[in-house]
Amino acid sequence: MSSHETTPKTANLQWGGRFAEGPSAIMGAINASIGFDQKMWRQDIRGSLAHAAMLAHVGVISAEDERAIRQGLDDIAESIEAGRFGFVESLEDIHMNIEARLTERIGEAGKRLHTGRSRNDQVALDVRLWVRDAIDGLSGQIRDVMRALADRAAEHAGTVMPGFTHLQPAQPVTFGHHMLAYVEMLSRDLSRFADARTRMNECPLGAAALAGTGFPIDRHMTATALGFDAPMRNSLDAVASRDFAAEFLFACAMCGTHLSRLAEEIVIWTNPYFGFVKLSDGFTTGSSIMPQKRNPDAAELVRGKTGRLNGSLIGLLTVMKGLALTYFKDMQEDKEGVFDAAENLTLCLAAMGGMVRDMQPQVDRLAEAAGAGFSTATDLADWLVRTLKMPFRDAHHATGALVAKAESMGVDLAGLTIADMRAVEPRITEDVFNVLSVASSVRSRVSYGGTAPENVARMAAEWQEKLA
Amino acid sequence: MSSHETTPKTANLQWGGRFAEGPSAIMGAINASIGFDQKMWRQDIRGSLAHAAMLAHVGVISAEDERAIRQGLDDIAESIEAGRFGFVESLEDIHMNIEARLTERIGEAGKRLHTGRSRNDQVALDVRLWVRDAIDGLSGQIRDVMRALADRAAEHAGTVMPGFTHLQPAQPVTFGHHMLAYVEMLSRDLSRFADARTRMNECPLGAAALAGTGFPIDRHMTATALGFDAPMRNSLDAVASRDFAAEFLFACAMCGTHLSRLAEEIVIWTNPYFGFVKLSDGFTTGSSIMPQKRNPDAAELVRGKTGRLNGSLIGLLTVMKGLALTYFKDMQEDKEGVFDAAENLTLCLAAMGGMVRDMQPQVDRLAEAAGAGFSTATDLADWLVRTLKMPFRDAHHATGALVAKAESMGVDLAGLTIADMRAVEPRITEDVFNVLSVASSVRSRVSYGGTAPENVARMAAEWQEKLA
Amino acid sequence: MSSHETTPKTANLQWGGRFAEGPSAIMGAINASIGFDQKMWRQDIRGSLAHAAMLAHVGVISAEDERAIRQGLDDIAESIEAGRFGFVESLEDIHMNIEARLTERIGEAGKRLHTGRSRNDQVALDVRLWVRDAIDGLSGQIRDVMRALADRAAEHAGTVMPGFTHLQPAQPVTFGHHMLAYVEMLSRDLSRFADARTRMNECPLGAAALAGTGFPIDRHMTATALGFDAPMRNSLDAVASRDFAAEFLFACAMCGTHLSRLAEEIVIWTNPYFGFVKLSDGFTTGSSIMPQKRNPDAAELVRGKTGRLNGSLIGLLTVMKGLALTYFKDMQEDKEGVFDAAENLTLCLAAMGGMVRDMQPQVDRLAEAAGAGFSTATDLADWLVRTLKMPFRDAHHATGALVAKAESMGVDLAGLTIADMRAVEPRITEDVFNVLSVASSVRSRVSYGGTAPENVARMAAEWQEKLA
Amino acid sequence: MSSHETTPKTANLQWGGRFAEGPSAIMGAINASIGFDQKMWRQDIRGSLAHAAMLAHVGVISAEDERAIRQGLDDIAESIEAGRFGFVESLEDIHMNIEARLTERIGEAGKRLHTGRSRNDQVALDVRLWVRDAIDGLSGQIRDVMRALADRAAEHAGTVMPGFTHLQPAQPVTFGHHMLAYVEMLSRDLSRFADARTRMNECPLGAAALAGTGFPIDRHMTATALGFDAPMRNSLDAVASRDFAAEFLFACAMCGTHLSRLAEEIVIWTNPYFGFVKLSDGFTTGSSIMPQKRNPDAAELVRGKTGRLNGSLIGLLTVMKGLALTYFKDMQEDKEGVFDAAENLTLCLAAMGGMVRDMQPQVDRLAEAAGAGFSTATDLADWLVRTLKMPFRDAHHATGALVAKAESMGVDLAGLTIADMRAVEPRITEDVFNVLSVASSVRSRVSYGGTAPENVARMAAEWQEKLA
Repeated sequence: MSSHETTPKTANLQWGGRFAEGPSAIMGAINASIGFDQKMWRQDIRGSLAHAAMLAHVGVISAEDERAIRQGLDDIAESIEAGRFGFVESLEDIHMNIEARLTERIGEAGKRLHTGRSRNDQVALDVRLWVRDAIDGLSGQIRDVMRALADRAAEHAGTVMPGFTHLQPAQPVTFGHHMLAYVEMLSRDLSRFADARTRMNECPLGAAALAGTGFPIDRHMTATALGFDAPMRNSLDAVASRDFAAEFLFACAMCGTHLSRLAEEIVIWTNPYFGFVKLSDGFTTGSSIMPQKRNPDAAELVRGKTGRLNGSLIGLLTVMKGLALTYFKDMQEDKEGVFDAAENLTLCLAAMGGMVRDMQPQVDRLAEAAGAGFSTATDLADWLVRTLKMPFRDAHHATGALVAKAESMGVDLAGLTIADMRAVEPRITEDVFNVLSVASSVRSRVSYGGTAPENVARMAAEWQEKLA
Repeated sequence: MSSHETTPKTANLQWGGRFAEGPSAIMGAINASIGFDQKMWRQDIRGSLAHAAMLAHVGVISAEDERAIRQGLDDIAESIEAGRFGFVESLEDIHMNIEARLTERIGEAGKRLHTGRSRNDQVALDVRLWVRDAIDGLSGQIRDVMRALADRAAEHAGTVMPGFTHLQPAQPVTFGHHMLAYVEMLSRDLSRFADARTRMNECPLGAAALAGTGFPIDRHMTATALGFDAPMRNSLDAVASRDFAAEFLFACAMCGTHLSRLAEEIVIWTNPYFGFVKLSDGFTTGSSIMPQKRNPDAAELVRGKTGRLNGSLIGLLTVMKGLALTYFKDMQEDKEGVFDAAENLTLCLAAMGGMVRDMQPQVDRLAEAAGAGFSTATDLADWLVRTLKMPFRDAHHATGALVAKAESMGVDLAGLTIADMRAVEPRITEDVFNVLSVASSVRSRVSYGGTAPENVARMAAEWQEKLA
Repeated sequence: MSSHETTPKTANLQWGGRFAEGPSAIMGAINASIGFDQKMWRQDIRGSLAHAAMLAHVGVISAEDERAIRQGLDDIAESIEAGRFGFVESLEDIHMNIEARLTERIGEAGKRLHTGRSRNDQVALDVRLWVRDAIDGLSGQIRDVMRALADRAAEHAGTVMPGFTHLQPAQPVTFGHHMLAYVEMLSRDLSRFADARTRMNECPLGAAALAGTGFPIDRHMTATALGFDAPMRNSLDAVASRDFAAEFLFACAMCGTHLSRLAEEIVIWTNPYFGFVKLSDGFTTGSSIMPQKRNPDAAELVRGKTGRLNGSLIGLLTVMKGLALTYFKDMQEDKEGVFDAAENLTLCLAAMGGMVRDMQPQVDRLAEAAGAGFSTATDLADWLVRTLKMPFRDAHHATGALVAKAESMGVDLAGLTIADMRAVEPRITEDVFNVLSVASSVRSRVSYGGTAPENVARMAAEWQEKLA
Repeated sequence: MSSHETTPKTANLQWGGRFAEGPSAIMGAINASIGFDQKMWRQDIRGSLAHAAMLAHVGVISAEDERAIRQGLDDIAESIEAGRFGFVESLEDIHMNIEARLTERIGEAGKRLHTGRSRNDQVALDVRLWVRDAIDGLSGQIRDVMRALADRAAEHAGTVMPGFTHLQPAQPVTFGHHMLAYVEMLSRDLSRFADARTRMNECPLGAAALAGTGFPIDRHMTATALGFDAPMRNSLDAVASRDFAAEFLFACAMCGTHLSRLAEEIVIWTNPYFGFVKLSDGFTTGSSIMPQKRNPDAAELVRGKTGRLNGSLIGLLTVMKGLALTYFKDMQEDKEGVFDAAENLTLCLAAMGGMVRDMQPQVDRLAEAAGAGFSTATDLADWLVRTLKMPFRDAHHATGALVAKAESMGVDLAGLTIADMRAVEPRITEDVFNVLSVASSVRSRVSYGGTAPENVARMAAEWQEKLA
C-alpha cells in the first residue's frame, strides 16, 4: 500500500490530532460560526443600518456618528460583495466580524453602534431576515413551477392517460388534469410559505439581551424600516423563539414531499414499459455504452432530497425540545439546517420546473394505455345506475360480471355484443356503447374538479391568469 | 421458573403463531383499519348525510330514499354513541361497517347511498373532518392555557425574578413577563392551527375514485353543508393529498415543543436549589418515604410527549415521500399518528393549563435570586453610556472592572462606595446608585416589549381582554 | 344536520370537558400507564419471581414467604392469562396492579417482595425483558422470510429478468439473484437484532432507586435466573438508560426500510406494464367493478409502515435528548413506541413472508423484458476488451457506436451482421455473437457474487442450509 | 436603504437567476457531487490501487500498466494532499476527477483501470471505506472520553453528591459513581460502532454495475488488500444497500444523545444555585460586562448538536425508504449526512473530553447538598426492615411519619431524639443513628453496581486498566 494511505494511526491523528493543542482549538472549532453565518452578511448590515438610523433619530447617537456608521457599513458591504473581506475565525461570528471591522475603520462611532441592542436580538433579527428573503425567493420559484405545470395542463387538457390507484390503472383521466393536481399541491405550499412569512414578520430588534432596554429606542421605527409589520411584543420571546425557522423548515419539507411525488412519477413514466413521457438529454444522464438508456437523474435527486429536508426539520425540533428560556448556544444550530434546506429546495424547484417544461408526453402511448384494462368499467356501472335506476352496489355487481365475460372472451367491454350484455342484464340498450370509449369517459366527468377536458382547460386558464 | 413464562418457543408462537392459518389471517391483521378508524364514525355519518341530501336535491335518489338513509344513519349514530354497535373486522373499515348496517336496516336505499362517490373521497373527507374537529378542540384548549398564563402575568406583573441566558442569571425580569413570553409562543401556535384549518377547509367529496363523476352532483352544496369554504378544485389532488394532516401534525409538534420548554422550566424551578415555584399535590407525585419530595411528573410527561409528536410528524412525511398519484393503501397510515397526536397534545394542554393555574411563585426566593450575581451590571453600563456619553463598548469595559472590584471585595455593586467607583471611572456620580437596584432595573426597561412592570401589566390586560 | 353532529361546542366539550373535574382527572389521564404497560405482565411476574427466590436464598425473606409469593404470582398470572384480572387505573401501572393484588391475596409476605428493589429498576427490567422477547420473536420471523426468499431463489436461480439501475433496464440478471439480495439485507437486520440482544442482555435489577442497596442481595443470581449474561455494572446507568430500546427501534426501522424496498418492487412488478409477478387474491384486494384489478394492498401497507417505525425511533431519541440522570417520568414514553414498532414489524414480516411465497414470477414476460433494450451491450464491450485488448474506455466508445447503429436499423445487437460491426471496429470476429444473448450474458457473470445461475444456485443452497 | 440591500427582486434573482441559462446550469448544480465527495479522495485512490494490483495479478492488465497506474495515482494523491489538485465540476465526482487526470498523465493504461468495475461498486466501496475510517477515528475519541471519565471517577470515588430522580434529590451517591454511569453508556456506544464495523466490513468491489462481471477478477484479493473480511456475497445488494451508513448514523445519534445528557448536567451543575462544578475559561465564554458569568457554551453546543445527528439519521432512512433495486441517484444523498455527522460527533467528543478533564467538582457544595432534604430516609427505612423485620411497605410508612415529624420540627433525621423516634416506632434503638449520615449511606450501598466508594474505586480502576 502506498504512503498516502490513511492508516488507523493517521486516521486517529486526523480525527483527534487537530485538538491536541487543547481547549482553545476545540472551542475555536465548536464555537465559531463564521464559517456558515457569513451567509447572513447582507441581513446583518441591513439590521445595523436600521438600528443606527433609529439611534440617531431618537438622539442616542449623533447624526455624524450615524453617517460614519452608514458609510463604514456600505464600504464593508462592498468589500464582502467583491470577495475582498477577510473573515476572521477568532471573531467567531458574522456580527463581530463586521462590528470589529467597522470600529477599525471609523473608530469611536463604531463602538456606539451596539447601544440598546445585544447579540441576542441581533442574531434573532438576522436569521429572521434571512428566512424572509428565502421565503420570497422560494415563493417565486414555486410560482414558476406552477406556471410550467399550468402551461402543460393547458396544452394537454384533452390528452388522455390512465388514472392510477395502487399503481393499477383505474379510470382514464387527462394529462392536463394530472398536471393540475400538482398545481394545487404547490399552491398550498405557496400559501404555507406566505402564512409563515406573515406570522414571522415581527421584529425582534430592541429586545436587547432579553429584558428590553432603558434607552429611548423606537422599535416601531426599526421594524418599519426593515419591512416588518410590528415589533415583537415580548422581549424574552424575541430572543428565545425559533418557531419561525421550524415552520419554514416544515414548509420546505412539505413542498419537497410534493415534489418527490412528481419526481417518482417521472422516474416511473420514463421507464420503458411505461413510456409515458420522454425527457431530453438536459435532464438525464446517459451511459457511454447504452445510448438508449436515459437515467432520470434530476428526478431521482429531487426525490432523494426529501430526506435532508425532513432531517433539517427534525433536527431543529430536536434542538428546541425542552430548552428553558431564553437564549442558549444550542440555538446556534438553527442556521445550517435552514441554509441547507433553502439551498436544496431551490435546486429541487429549479430542476422540477425544468423537467416539467422539458418532458414530452407520449400521446399515443398514453391513449393506448388509457384504453386498456377495462378502464371504462365505472362508466358502464354508472350507466346502469343512471339509465336503469339500479342501486349503485347492484350495478357494480353486474358490471363485474360483464368485465369477467369480456375478459374470458379476450375482448374489451366495447367488444361485447349487445346480446352478450343482455345475457347478464336484459335491460341494457345500445345506448350503453356511448359510454364505453375513453373519450366519452373523460368527457363525462364534468363534476366540479373532475377530469373532463373542458374542466381542465378552464382550470388551467384560471391558473395561468393568476400566475401571470 | 413457573409455567406461564414466555419461553423462546412460546415467544415465537406468540409472534408467528397467529398467522399460521395463512394469508387471510395476515391480511385481516394488516389490512383492517376498523380497530382505529372507528374514531371517525361521527365524521363518516355527517358526510353520508350531506351526500344523501345532495343526491336527493339533484334528483339522483328519491326524497323517500333520502329519508330512509337519514333515519337509518341517525339510528346507527345513536347505537354507536350508546356503545351498542358491534363493529365487524371482516368489513375492514368504519365506512363499510356503517354502510353494510345501513343496507341491512333499510334495504335498497342503502345501496344507493354510494352513488357518485367512492371510498377514496369518502375517507379523504372523514379524515379532514376529524382533523378540523381536532383543531377546533385543541384551539379552545390553547386559548385556555393562554388565559391561565395571562392571568398569572397580570397577577405577577411586578414580581421580579432572574432572567436567564445559558441558564446563568443575566438581568432581572418579572415573572409576569416570563409568563407572557409563552402567551406569545402559544398565540403563534394558535394561528398556525387557524391557518391550517383555513387551508384545509375545502371539500374532497365528489372527487369519487379519482376522476370525478358523470352524475350531476352538486359539490358546492355538500361543501357548504359540511362547513367547507368550497369544494377542492382537482379530483386527483382531492384523493391523493394528505398535506393537511402533515401540517396539523407539525402544528401539534411545534406547540408540543413550546410546552416542553415551559415543562423543562417547571422541572428546574421546582428543584429545591432553585425553589422558584411550588406545585401542589395535584400535579406532583410523592414518595411514600420522603414526604418533602414532590416529583413534577406532569411536567415531565408534557416534556416527554414531544417525542411522539415529532415521531408522528416524521412518520407521515415518510409515508408520503415519493408516493405516486393517486391513492395507495400506504395512506391508511395517516390516521393513527393524527389520532395519537391530537389525544396527547390534548393531555399536554390540560396538564399545562392546570399546572400554570396551580403553581405558586415563591416571591421572596425569586427576589433574592434576582438581586444576586451583579444582575444590574448592564444597568450600570447603560448609565455610563447615557450619562457620561461613553461609547457602548468602553462602558462595558469599565463595568467589567467595577464588577471585578466588587467581587474581590465580596460586595454587590450597590455595596461599592462612590470612591471605589471613581477609582475606575472618575466621572461617576452618586446618581449611579439610582440604577443599581433590581426594582429600578426592571422599572427602566420601558422599551416596547421590555420587562418594565407597567409594560407587563398592560400587555397582560390586553391578552386577558382578547382571550375573554 | 341531525342531533348527533359534533358541533364546535360539543367538540370543545369532548376535548376539554372530561378534565373539568380538575387536577385529579388530568393527572389520572396523563400519568397512568396501565392502559399500555399491562402488555408487560409476563415480564413483571418473571422479574418478581426471580427477585423473591433470590431474597429467600440470601435470607432477606423466609422460604415460607417466598412460597406464598410464588403461589400468589402464579395465581395472578393465571387470572391475567384467562382475562379475569381487573386492571385498576388508580393503581397507575402494571407493577402496582400486580403488587397490590398480591398483598390482597397473601398479606404480609406481599409487602416484603419489594425489599431491595424499587420501581425504577423494576420498570427498567420489565421493558428490557419485553424487548428481548420481541427480538426473539422478530428474529424467528426474519429467518422465515429469508427462508422463503432463499427457496424462491433456488427455484428461479436461472430465471432471467432485467436488472435495473435508475428503474431503467441495465443488464440481465436472474430472479433468484434478486431474491438473494434481500436475503443479504435481512441477514444483516438479523445480526443487528442479535447484536442488540447481546448488548442489552445485562440485568438492571438490584440497582434499586438509583444507588444500589445495602441489603445483601445477589444480583448475579437474579441475572442468571432471568437469562441475562451479567448484572449491569452501574446502578445509575441501570435506571437511567434506554439506549437498548432505541437500538431495538433502529433495528426495526432498518428492517422495515429493507422490506419497504421489496414492497415497492412488488407494487411496481404487479403493475400491468411490468407484469413481472402475479399475486393471488390472498394478498391483494380487488374492485367489485374491475375484476382484473388486483391492488397489492399488503405490499403498500408494508411500504407505508416504514413511516411509523421511523417515527417511533425519532420519538424515543427525542425523549432521551438532554435528559439529566437518572429517572424522569419522560421515560414512561419509551414503551408505546416499542410496542407499536414490534407489533407492526411483526405484521410486515408476516405479510412479506406470505407474499414472497405467494408471488408467481411471469417467466416469459421476464425473459422478454430481459432481452430488450440492448441489455447485452456491456457484454459486447467486455468482449472487445478481452478479445481485442482495447482499453475499457475505448471499448465503451465503440460499443456505443454499435448500439446506435443497431437502434437506427431497428434491430437488436444480435441482429447486426458481422459486416455492420466491422464498419465500426474492423477486428470484430464471429465469436462476438457468443456473448450477445441474455443466456450467455448471465452465464458469464461468474465473478464471486455475480448473477451466473450456478453462483445463484449455490448461494441459495447455502442459505437454505443455514436457515434450515 | 443603501444599494447593497437584498430587495425582493435581487433575492429572486439570487435564487432563480443563476439557473437562467437553462438545463445545463441546473443539472450542473444538482447533479455534481465533487463539492462534497472530494472528501473521499484517499478512499478512492486506495480502492483503485487495490483494483489495479488485482487486475495485474489475474492478467487482465499488464504489470507495466499497473506500475504506471500506481505511479500516476501516487502523484495525484500527493498533489491533492498538497492542495495543488484542481477539482473540475464538469467531471461531476471524485471518481471521474481522478480517473480523467490519471489518463491525462499516463495515457492508455489509465483507460484500462476501470475494467471489471463500475461507478456503482466504486462509489459503494469509497463510502464504505470512509465510514470505516470514521468509525476508527470516533472510536479512539470515545475511548479517550471514557478514560477522562474513569480518571475523574477514580479521583472522586468517595466524593458525595446528591443522586437525583425527577431532578429532585433522592439519595446520596458519589461523583465518581456518576462519572462511571457515562463510561457505561459510552462503552455501549463503542461496541455499537464496533458491531457496525464488523457488519459492514465486506467488500462491494467487483459487483460492477450490478450483475458482477465476466472478467476473471479476484474479489477475495481486493477485499483482503483493503482490509475487508470478505467480498460481499451478492452483487445487487453490494451496489444497492446503504444500511451500513444508516447504522453508522444511528450509532452517532445514540452517542450524541448520551453526550447531550452529560451536557445538560454540566449546564445545570454550573448554574449558580447548583454550583456543583466549575468550568475554566477554556470551555466557557464570558460576558464583557459580567465577569462572574460563565456561559457553558461548549456544553450547550454538544447538547444542541444532537439535533443534526438525529436529522442525518432520519434523512438517510427517508432517502432509502421504498427505493427499488439497485442503484438510484437518490443514493448520492447518503454522503453529506454521513460526513456532517462524523465531523460534528468528532467535535462533541473533543469538547466533552476537554470538559470532563477540566471541570472542578465543588466538593463542599456537593457534600452540603448531599446531606439536605432527608436524603437518608431510605437508609432509615432499610434499617427498620433489616433490624425490626418490618415488611418493606410498612417500614416505608413509618419512615414517612418520621420525616414528617423532623420536617415539622425543622431538623434533619439525625436531629430527632431517640424519644422522638420511639413515639413513631417504639422498637427503634440508638443503632439507627449509624445509618443516618451521608457517609454511612453511600458506604452501605455495597450491592454489585451500587455507589459504595469501594465499589466505585474498584470499577474505576478496572476501566482505567481496560482503557489504558
